[in-house]
Amino acid sequence: MKILVSNDDGIFALGLRTLATSMAEAGYEVTVVAPDRERSATGHGLTIHQPLRAEAIENVFPPQVKAWSCSGTPADCVKLALGALLTEPPDLVVSGINHGANLGTDVLYSGTVSAAMEGIMEGISSIAFSLTTYKSGDFATAGKFAQTLVAQIAKEPLPTLMLLNVNVPPIDWSELTGVIVTRQGIRRYFDSFQKRVDPRGKTYYWLAGEAIEEVDQLDDPQLASHVLTDVQGIQQNYITITPLQYNLTNIAGINCLETRTFSL
Amino acid sequence: MKILVSNDDGIFALGLRTLATSMAEAGYEVTVVAPDRERSATGHGLTIHQPLRAEAIENVFPPQVKAWSCSGTPADCVKLALGALLTEPPDLVVSGINHGANLGTDVLYSGTVSAAMEGIMEGISSIAFSLTTYKSGDFATAGKFAQTLVAQIAKEPLPTLMLLNVNVPPIDWSELTGVIVTRQGIRRYFDSFQKRVDPRGKTYYWLAGEAIEEVDQLDDPQLASHVLTDVQGIQQNYITITPLQYNLTNIAGINCLETRTFSL
Repeated sequence: MKILVSNDDGIFALGLRTLATSMAEAGYEVTVVAPDRERSATGHGLTIHQPLRAEAIENVFPPQVKAWSCSGTPADCVKLALGALLTEPPDLVVSGINHGANLGTDVLYSGTVSAAMEGIMEGISSIAFSLTTYKSGDFATAGKFAQTLVAQIAKEPLPTLMLLNVNVPPIDWSELTGVIVTRQGIRRYFDSFQKRVDPRGKTYYWLAGEAIEEVDQLDDPQLASHVLTDVQGIQQNYITITPLQYNLTNIAGINCLETRTFSL
Repeated sequence: MKILVSNDDGIFALGLRTLATSMAEAGYEVTVVAPDRERSATGHGLTIHQPLRAEAIENVFPPQVKAWSCSGTPADCVKLALGALLTEPPDLVVSGINHGANLGTDVLYSGTVSAAMEGIMEGISSIAFSLTTYKSGDFATAGKFAQTLVAQIAKEPLPTLMLLNVNVPPIDWSELTGVIVTRQGIRRYFDSFQKRVDPRGKTYYWLAGEAIEEVDQLDDPQLASHVLTDVQGIQQNYITITPLQYNLTNIAGINCLETRTFSL
């Protein structure tokens, strides 16, 4: 199996090295194309007004891993890999292991998820891995699970093209409750900006702490009511797997608006 | 009604001026907070590692319009407006008028849509407006329709919190077929990168033309089969209104995976 690995924490992040190494140790043919610097919270940004650079990276990954650092965003990295750097398309795109959770509406901002999203947009199943803490940098549990999950998928492929958004709690393997399939939770942010004055007397703002509240989702009749949200799953020490897709259509909204006439 | 206006083409773009002016002329209380430069294809990026600047802008918009340019992305602009610049939350966030279409999977990359997305994430209904051409810079039809649509919503509010992604074809008002509620189409891109060599002999890549193909969506049992995609609607000279939301859960995927055991 050929695997493309990317992330948003940058080419030298430990989470990326853990993921690429765990894939290489399992015997897959691994190529890394990752941003040359931290690119968190870049969402699904693309670089269209500037050229992209790609540089071969040596002595960071196991010798059998081909690696490039790229001047673009995570989505650029995957696009460039598929469109120019790789000679054959990979069987799987994996992204991460992100240092920090990608739960609930975080997925909209997440560079890690957007790299995986770019994969499914080009028809390749993809997995985004995140460790749900900004503190501990211990990626051992997440790396081991990445290996476990990809081995399971190699044996029994996913039924359709999909993106799996995987979040791993920052605990030892022995403390995990298990693995659970979840839905995307909804988190409402209450942003607070700090207003400051710079050394030249000019005002600036900095996005500071955010209070987060999980709000209940509208029930979806297609979804079994026992399916936990990713946020709830992590709270119960599960590894959560949330299948995502790229269609943002608000179907309930269409059904509401269909009876209404918008006129010219 | 209080309206916050943003975009991704930047504070001096004609599309933004057209939208803000059409809202002000209709008698709404308008505040503009828009990027200080072009920020297309930034996706839902946020600025978290740098401060944001906001500068009052005068003599660009009608005198009753308050306007700021902001050093951040479209999503930053809306976040900063709601979190720091506005004293009261607006009733509606409008974004655009984008110079270029935001159809199908474009919405994932679109700064215009992400500004509106930030609105609904903070609980405020939002509308993204786009003119479906990169050529003609004639925003008259789109500006007139923005006024028409917002007046209709002011009179009869939207039934639930939603984002309306509006695309307007680049034709005269008299040539429009009508207004239609659509679903997000799926477009598959076949990217081509140009590989070039810089004056110092180093390689770079530039995202060049893309062949685009609309692929059929899996039928959704909740959706009436007659609902056109946004791409189809535009081809028929309709103004398309696609309700969007921010939940990326792949429900069919969950139902598929529920019968399968992922083990540790």
